Amino acid sequence: MDFSPELIAIGQKAKDAARKLAYSSTANKNKALLAMADALLAHEQEILVANQKDVEAAIQKGIKKSLVNRLTLTSEGIHQMSDSLREVVNLADPVGEGEFWTRPNGLRIQRTRVPLGVVAMVYEARPNVTVDAAALCLKSGNAVILRGGSEAIESNKVLSRVISEASERQGMPTASIQLLENTDRQWVQQLMKMNGYVDVIIPRGGAGLIQTVVKESTVPVIETGTGVCHAFVDQEGNFDKGVSIVFNSKTHRPGVCNALETVLIHEAVASEFLPLLGEKLWDYGVEIRGCEKTCAILPYASKARSEDWGTEYLDLIISAKVVKDVDEAMDHIYQYGTKHSETIITENYTTAQRFLNEVDAAAVYVNASTRFTDGGRFGFGAEIGISTQKLHARGPMGLRELTTMKYMIYGEDHIVT
Amino acid sequence: MDFSPELIAIGQKAKDAARKLAYSSTANKNKALLAMADALLAHEQEILVANQKDVEAAIQKGIKKSLVNRLTLTSEGIHQMSDSLREVVNLADPVGEGEFWTRPNGLRIQRTRVPLGVVAMVYEARPNVTVDAAALCLKSGNAVILRGGSEAIESNKVLSRVISEASERQGMPTASIQLLENTDRQWVQQLMKMNGYVDVIIPRGGAGLIQTVVKESTVPVIETGTGVCHAFVDQEGNFDKGVSIVFNSKTHRPGVCNALETVLIHEAVASEFLPLLGEKLWDYGVEIRGCEKTCAILPYASKARSEDWGTEYLDLIISAKVVKDVDEAMDHIYQYGTKHSETIITENYTTAQRFLNEVDAAAVYVNASTRFTDGGRFGFGAEIGISTQKLHARGPMGLRELTTMKYMIYGEDHIVT
Repeated sequence: MDFSPELIAIGQKAKDAARKLAYSSTANKNKALLAMADALLAHEQEILVANQKDVEAAIQKGIKKSLVNRLTLTSEGIHQMSDSLREVVNLADPVGEGEFWTRPNGLRIQRTRVPLGVVAMVYEARPNVTVDAAALCLKSGNAVILRGGSEAIESNKVLSRVISEASERQGMPTASIQLLENTDRQWVQQLMKMNGYVDVIIPRGGAGLIQTVVKESTVPVIETGTGVCHAFVDQEGNFDKGVSIVFNSKTHRPGVCNALETVLIHEAVASEFLPLLGEKLWDYGVEIRGCEKTCAILPYASKARSEDWGTEYLDLIISAKVVKDVDEAMDHIYQYGTKHSETIITENYTTAQRFLNEVDAAAVYVNASTRFTDGGRFGFGAEIGISTQKLHARGPMGLRELTTMKYMIYGEDHIVT
Repeated sequence: MDFSPELIAIGQKAKDAARKLAYSSTANKNKALLAMADALLAHEQEILVANQKDVEAAIQKGIKKSLVNRLTLTSEGIHQMSDSLREVVNLADPVGEGEFWTRPNGLRIQRTRVPLGVVAMVYEARPNVTVDAAALCLKSGNAVILRGGSEAIESNKVLSRVISEASERQGMPTASIQLLENTDRQWVQQLMKMNGYVDVIIPRGGAGLIQTVVKESTVPVIETGTGVCHAFVDQEGNFDKGVSIVFNSKTHRPGVCNALETVLIHEAVASEFLPLLGEKLWDYGVEIRGCEKTCAILPYASKARSEDWGTEYLDLIISAKVVKDVDEAMDHIYQYGTKHSETIITENYTTAQRFLNEVDAAAVYVNASTRFTDGGRFGFGAEIGISTQKLHARGPMGLRELTTMKYMIYGEDHIVT
């Protein structure tokens, strides 16, 4: 692949920054984060003006309203970004954590957490990702290359300049935070092949973006995102819990990856439970797409097509299927799930344990909403994304997931025999 | 990509096996491993006959001697394979390890180690990898798809059949261990794209194989291998230690990835130290390719070309360079190293600490041989390979690196607000 010399220069600067960042002290990184938080507030007007340009351009292009909303920054939003930087200051720095042991020959092996190096973030229209990702990467000692969507380019330019200048003034290495100002697709395609410069690439956004990165990148990827999450209401499930958990999982924030898409109902309780659940969902305006049995019980349900199973609606739509037992439920999840978050509603101990053990997903719940799969709600304090892959990180990724290990070994003239 | 239906069938069988293997008990997996060890001995003759076919075919094809050696099995070799299976029995099973915490709302989160799922191993001519990889995958609860080199196909067919049958007789799921009997390149290329069937692909072998897999695979890869390892003999290095560590790192087993390729010498001690080192290496038959200063000191050194820096000789050849100080040494390692294993010989505390902190590699040593970078020597008991990437696993990979985490969450009607 022919790389753009400008992009190689950005990669090299990131590598050089990463080399120094790797042994920056927590105290110095925190000083930089506080300065970044202050700088955002100091440049509020400038940020809002740039954002206004992006928003106007988006409206002119006829971009859909939900996207324009995600793009739009307000004064309150800028204060929230600033606050979130201060929260990152309070998170424990994983760099330098570790354990050590001594081998029988006296060799001391110290397994130490170190930064990954250079992290590339590829995301879409939300400008706050620029600030979040930069903060988490800085705190964990990584240089970051940010590539946001073209719709947010003016906002991102100002945001990244403001925080990057503030961090450099506090002594952080130049180019610790870089934005790809050129949003040409060509550049992302090159970025995905920059092994030797980029240590990991994290796509955040829609399924299309994520799949492109997974398929095309030769740089190691952390796959985030897509969640076709299920709830199984067991024969021995408590109906009140079932209604409240399914309702919460589906409606609390339908546009996010840990929202529920499908409810599976044990056939022994379907005719009793489904009307209770259905009424609550229907009243709230949730469209129900059911299997034949569901439709026979709920007259207002429409018939699900085969592609409904496996669809991440990200909307007030739910698919519903009556199943024979927990085995059929688990088979369905195995076939259509994306290994994100799955929950069972049951009072039966053994069924609960089977579900926990046998369902393969980042987060498996008993009697709880799938919406808990979140770095903040897990107690990690911040989140760079939710990994749906198994390698390196699974589930909500906090600062620790932005690090790797290094073995430091203390010898005294040790040779192998 | 169009997938071969046979390959998809293999992938599906592996997935189904993995689903059951995930919750096989340690006791049952150990029983299977012991049966596999017995079966290898019981089928010794059959294995030797199949191996003889491979060896004869290789000799006829004029394949080079070192490769034929790696391919050849002996009765002793089969006993060693059998013993190594028994050793895996003694290793701790990482599956089910974990930690848990309780959130302020009472939600109990249990972070549990679980198998990766389906592991694909792509390797070259050594038939013992077939047995090693199968054993480590089984012990860690993973289904494995083995794809060995075509040169070893007859040996691999018998080996995989013998151990697979033995494990199934002990109740392990069918298809826990599968060999790709078709060694067509097409199949490997498809295997590398089988996301949804294969959770991770681990290439083991030469740099060519590894780079192909890294570049072409859309399945997550663990990169193993290439080690351009350096030793830096500091101004304050002890000469005896320097000679013994460099000699050991270079000559103990030159064909492996943790062997030394380059020695860097502080200019203040070069004229005194190099003759001591050079003589010992020269006597042993090691070719020395030096920088100008090295050649001026050692008349028997040949002049290094620029491509010598960065070359993994895997042979009795060493490159040698005189550097100004530890900074120049670290810059050289930064430029030419592969982040595998690096060592410094010094008595100076601060220089040692700087080297440990600032050199970015899986294993960084003070006064010890790079040859220690090995699962067994680190105390992990067994090794599936040495990772030179930063994601998921770094350095020697044992059983734990063949697992991922899963969150099991115990709620009591928990919903988010």
